[in-house]
Amino acid sequence: MSRPLVLHPDRLLPVEPKAQAIARELYASVMNLPIVSPHGHTDPSWFATNTSFGNATDLLLVPDHYVFRMLYSQGVSLESLGVGNPTVDARAAWRLFAERYHLFRATPSRVWLDWVFAEAFGIEVRLDAETSDLYFDMITEALATDAFRPRALFERLGIEVIATTESPIDTLEHHAAIGASGWSGKVVTAYRPDPVVDPEFEGFSANLDRFSQLAGEDCRSWSGYLAAHRKRRAFFAAHGATSTDHGHPTAQTANLSPHEAAALFDKIVGGKAGAAEAELFRAQMLTEMAAMSVDDGLVMQIHPGSFRNHNAGVFARFGRDKGADIPTRTDYVHALKPLLDRFGNARDLSIILFTLDESAYARELAPLAGHYPCLKLGPAWWFHDSPEGMRRFRRMTTETAGLYNTVGFNDDTRAFLSIPARHDLARRIDCGFLGELVAEHRLEDWEAAELAQDLAYNFVKQAYRL
Amino acid sequence: MSRPLVLHPDRLLPVEPKAQAIARELYASVMNLPIVSPHGHTDPSWFATNTSFGNATDLLLVPDHYVFRMLYSQGVSLESLGVGNPTVDARAAWRLFAERYHLFRATPSRVWLDWVFAEAFGIEVRLDAETSDLYFDMITEALATDAFRPRALFERLGIEVIATTESPIDTLEHHAAIGASGWSGKVVTAYRPDPVVDPEFEGFSANLDRFSQLAGEDCRSWSGYLAAHRKRRAFFAAHGATSTDHGHPTAQTANLSPHEAAALFDKIVGGKAGAAEAELFRAQMLTEMAAMSVDDGLVMQIHPGSFRNHNAGVFARFGRDKGADIPTRTDYVHALKPLLDRFGNARDLSIILFTLDESAYARELAPLAGHYPCLKLGPAWWFHDSPEGMRRFRRMTTETAGLYNTVGFNDDTRAFLSIPARHDLARRIDCGFLGELVAEHRLEDWEAAELAQDLAYNFVKQAYRL
Amino acid sequence: MSRPLVLHPDRLLPVEPKAQAIARELYASVMNLPIVSPHGHTDPSWFATNTSFGNATDLLLVPDHYVFRMLYSQGVSLESLGVGNPTVDARAAWRLFAERYHLFRATPSRVWLDWVFAEAFGIEVRLDAETSDLYFDMITEALATDAFRPRALFERLGIEVIATTESPIDTLEHHAAIGASGWSGKVVTAYRPDPVVDPEFEGFSANLDRFSQLAGEDCRSWSGYLAAHRKRRAFFAAHGATSTDHGHPTAQTANLSPHEAAALFDKIVGGKAGAAEAELFRAQMLTEMAAMSVDDGLVMQIHPGSFRNHNAGVFARFGRDKGADIPTRTDYVHALKPLLDRFGNARDLSIILFTLDESAYARELAPLAGHYPCLKLGPAWWFHDSPEGMRRFRRMTTETAGLYNTVGFNDDTRAFLSIPARHDLARRIDCGFLGELVAEHRLEDWEAAELAQDLAYNFVKQAYRL
Repeated sequence: MSRPLVLHPDRLLPVEPKAQAIARELYASVMNLPIVSPHGHTDPSWFATNTSFGNATDLLLVPDHYVFRMLYSQGVSLESLGVGNPTVDARAAWRLFAERYHLFRATPSRVWLDWVFAEAFGIEVRLDAETSDLYFDMITEALATDAFRPRALFERLGIEVIATTESPIDTLEHHAAIGASGWSGKVVTAYRPDPVVDPEFEGFSANLDRFSQLAGEDCRSWSGYLAAHRKRRAFFAAHGATSTDHGHPTAQTANLSPHEAAALFDKIVGGKAGAAEAELFRAQMLTEMAAMSVDDGLVMQIHPGSFRNHNAGVFARFGRDKGADIPTRTDYVHALKPLLDRFGNARDLSIILFTLDESAYARELAPLAGHYPCLKLGPAWWFHDSPEGMRRFRRMTTETAGLYNTVGFNDDTRAFLSIPARHDLARRIDCGFLGELVAEHRLEDWEAAELAQDLAYNFVKQAYRL
Repeated sequence: MSRPLVLHPDRLLPVEPKAQAIARELYASVMNLPIVSPHGHTDPSWFATNTSFGNATDLLLVPDHYVFRMLYSQGVSLESLGVGNPTVDARAAWRLFAERYHLFRATPSRVWLDWVFAEAFGIEVRLDAETSDLYFDMITEALATDAFRPRALFERLGIEVIATTESPIDTLEHHAAIGASGWSGKVVTAYRPDPVVDPEFEGFSANLDRFSQLAGEDCRSWSGYLAAHRKRRAFFAAHGATSTDHGHPTAQTANLSPHEAAALFDKIVGGKAGAAEAELFRAQMLTEMAAMSVDDGLVMQIHPGSFRNHNAGVFARFGRDKGADIPTRTDYVHALKPLLDRFGNARDLSIILFTLDESAYARELAPLAGHYPCLKLGPAWWFHDSPEGMRRFRRMTTETAGLYNTVGFNDDTRAFLSIPARHDLARRIDCGFLGELVAEHRLEDWEAAELAQDLAYNFVKQAYRL
Repeated sequence: MSRPLVLHPDRLLPVEPKAQAIARELYASVMNLPIVSPHGHTDPSWFATNTSFGNATDLLLVPDHYVFRMLYSQGVSLESLGVGNPTVDARAAWRLFAERYHLFRATPSRVWLDWVFAEAFGIEVRLDAETSDLYFDMITEALATDAFRPRALFERLGIEVIATTESPIDTLEHHAAIGASGWSGKVVTAYRPDPVVDPEFEGFSANLDRFSQLAGEDCRSWSGYLAAHRKRRAFFAAHGATSTDHGHPTAQTANLSPHEAAALFDKIVGGKAGAAEAELFRAQMLTEMAAMSVDDGLVMQIHPGSFRNHNAGVFARFGRDKGADIPTRTDYVHALKPLLDRFGNARDLSIILFTLDESAYARELAPLAGHYPCLKLGPAWWFHDSPEGMRRFRRMTTETAGLYNTVGFNDDTRAFLSIPARHDLARRIDCGFLGELVAEHRLEDWEAAELAQDLAYNFVKQAYRL
């Protein structure tokens, strides 16, 4: 007999009755606010073409590295799940997942997926081996209907605006198509230049050629390369971008003289640079990007500290983004100083810092954001985008940085249907945090009510200039 | 007038009534499960000879570095406690401890010791200066009885299996004697090769000679040395070993070519290696051990990050294991990559990772274990084997690694009577953790009931192949 | 209409009723204990001259870097707040603060300030734009009265003893004046030699000249320099000092031979030393200071790990201590070993360790303090002197170091009126921590009652020999 799937109305709120009652009221006041998604990895072609998402496995399994990494860790091959294997039997792949759904107990994936199953698809029994086919059929059938096409979902899920992430060598044709379509949904891009900024990125040299071509500049000269960035940033801004994003291995910045920077660039494009010079170039480029942001007003996001593609065998066979990115210890205090020495007191610059190294929250990030006018703290990121992770973020940053140096929530996902689930989770945790502060008499109830709105809606719009 | 010693039935469970009620029920379902102790430092001669443990000081004070380190930190000399001083007046040493038992308030030693006093010895008053002699006499008298001999205790305490830890140059004569004795208690060994793998270990060169002798190989040639490991691993497996254990200063691994490894080994045995080469050799040996585990199926345990014998004066006078081992910052992401590049996707390899650096839990260890099929997370270790330490472990690893990439509990102790106390503590904390998840509606009650059994009993048997 | 300002009697205590009831009783038993402030940065001239503190802005805004750093991070210029700008309109500066008081929600500054407003000044409405002038006037008027002069406040706030911090080149004239005045308030100094120990300190060379002059020694010779320290330490002790304090960038210590140390010193005073030699010199000086402490009994405090004056622009314009000191990752295990190798087992030496890097609490500091007789742990420091910071400190250190290797509370502030607010906050958090231990049956109620007195009063007097 199958187990019922019920989302408890008080889930993720504090258990203690006084704090829970306060949190419940706060949550009720924000649960239906529109979703502002300022940073993520959804595919703009979905909204441009508005075609069906396919079957359950296509939508929920193959693209979700949170899901297949866990299954892989327990001995399930990636091929059998359909990863890098389009000819997989989708129903059989789904069954492998369904039989092992218990592996996700007490993880955020379980919270997000149960929301999707119950709220988006109206399923009333829990996923397990016995209900695997029921799930596969219900989800796949729903996806074939108009109500589950991307634009209909965008509207029904209450999304006010969503930002995708593209590189400078993307043509933004899907964004242009969305704009030209007359559809009212607001889908903007963000400028993520890693493929032309990181000399160690796959295809860096070819990327530069493409960059030259799209920008109409000679991107093998330092001045042409910088001009190309300026042009493409303007082009991105014309397609709605209000931010840039930088996913470097470290947070290192540099402040070379123009002459030194040009010499370094020559070495980079000449293919004569080693690892240290690649790192220095990425470092210098963060500062160059900050300089351009001072001019064009794009908000910078720095997402450092992921050791990408850690599993050599999986990378060789399946490529990037296969659940094998592992966080590393990350320094901010020394790393950001060169950039901050130059722009730290600039009034119009806004830099949002993220981390995968929670030991930096209270030690480095909150003190930096609680002093420098240009710095703000992004929300708990990636592995830390979870109930406990968000609680640690709030408890370790708030006392020094305050809540007003934070920027609301990012879902940062390519799993489209999980977006409302993630925002719901964040709103519950934030309301729980505020509820506990009120219950401890560290905050008045009317202050918490204001802050609940700010954390769920106002801060993100202000911080990302949306 | 003495204070009563009472172990409250709800101790260490959540205080909040809803979570407590759930946790209490979970705990009731696991409190009497057999004890599986897959990693520890009990002495196999106890079970081979089955002689009395001596007096209270012999059993509870002199061998317990948790206890004498705290007393030492407060100005009590080690000699006066009987450490390295067999002629000490045992009753007087006990009194020094009894008078200062308040120092252990809010420490896990206090939890363990109170369990031992109350449950194992039936003492009903608290330990203090006034009750010092009463304690000494009651414990010492009990230890003289048959009921307190090692085998009787093993049985009465509900131990299903216990693993000891021996080095390759141990003859395993006590394990052989236990096996030959006809006693039904299951006492297995584990292969801890540090004395012949770490060039900086005391007596390394003499250890190699002994290793050659026991293995019948020339352990001063690289091929003979490797062959000796293979032979001794097989010998250990024949004495019940299902695991190896590696206590290196760091988690560094290496993946040298056979030629490079042989050249390095020559330098090591030639006594010409410096600290960097010693580190590289230990690193290479972790990878060699993994290669052997792929062949013989022994589970690897890596316990890195302790700066051993930090106190030079204490080490010179009293030797190893005198409470002066201090944890250090420990990297896993870069350190393990050479080994993982070679064996990370091996289906039959199982490596259990431990840490003394909690900042690695959420940042490195959970992401690694939540991806690599060969990796699992050992429980909160050593200084972190405590109520708050275990809670941090669960809260910081579960959301990314899941519960199914963990391996249950290790008591890791040489304090025999504390074993049931430690398992009891772990079961209470785990049931509390599960109870809070249910109370927060992140887990269903029937899921928590399954997991309580898994965490207390099933996972450890599976992970250690016991 | 203004919002009422009410300090709830149960603020900062646990919310759960059982733990709260216990904590409330514990707090009631310590709330009125005298304040012992063994380390801080109040100005001895206040007590020597006993003149008025001026207006609200002078007292509460301009000297408080916790306050103006947050305002600066949100775009308010330091000049407009009166920082480095004595001609500012104090009322207008106060208004900038009042309008933005919401920025401090959920920060410790808000807790401290609300206490000062409500308890010290009797204000009954919350600070905001509307009440800005009311606040400015009430506070400024109060400060003009005799009841708000430094000595009257010292007495009314229940301060038993306060330590200030001076450098060896301070004449201690204010302490002498206090001593000569016949006033009964106990104000002692502490020996903070950074300006003559850190070759990178502003004015180091001139400081050495002044040091020579005051000590009557040639401080450009190694023996004269050491003799000068001995003399000035004795002079400080004669003005009540019982401790020294060391604010180095790292916790590095060294143990050079006398010959090596003298050669290094020659290089330092010759101005030929680079950054590495400056670091080595600071390291050696910690060990030299320990040697002197063994002789003269002054308790050493080590406050490492702050990257001072991180904001180059703010430092150039406004100087030190302007809210731009940022914590860095800090090693203790390797750093302290040279000093500990020499003095770690000294019975009469007492070293109190602080950190801004919480990842060291459970990993390094608690294990060190739980072993070495000379080491104790200072309380949660600076950015971590907050409700959540103190809770983390207790939860991460107690199980390994015990409570008896800690030293009570330090307010460490230059914000005089916040001293009772800070002690009140610490007492509430500590009583909450103890209350939770009792509610979890990890501690008996009578033990918690003893410990509450110890944490609030006894430990600090013992540890600082006050």
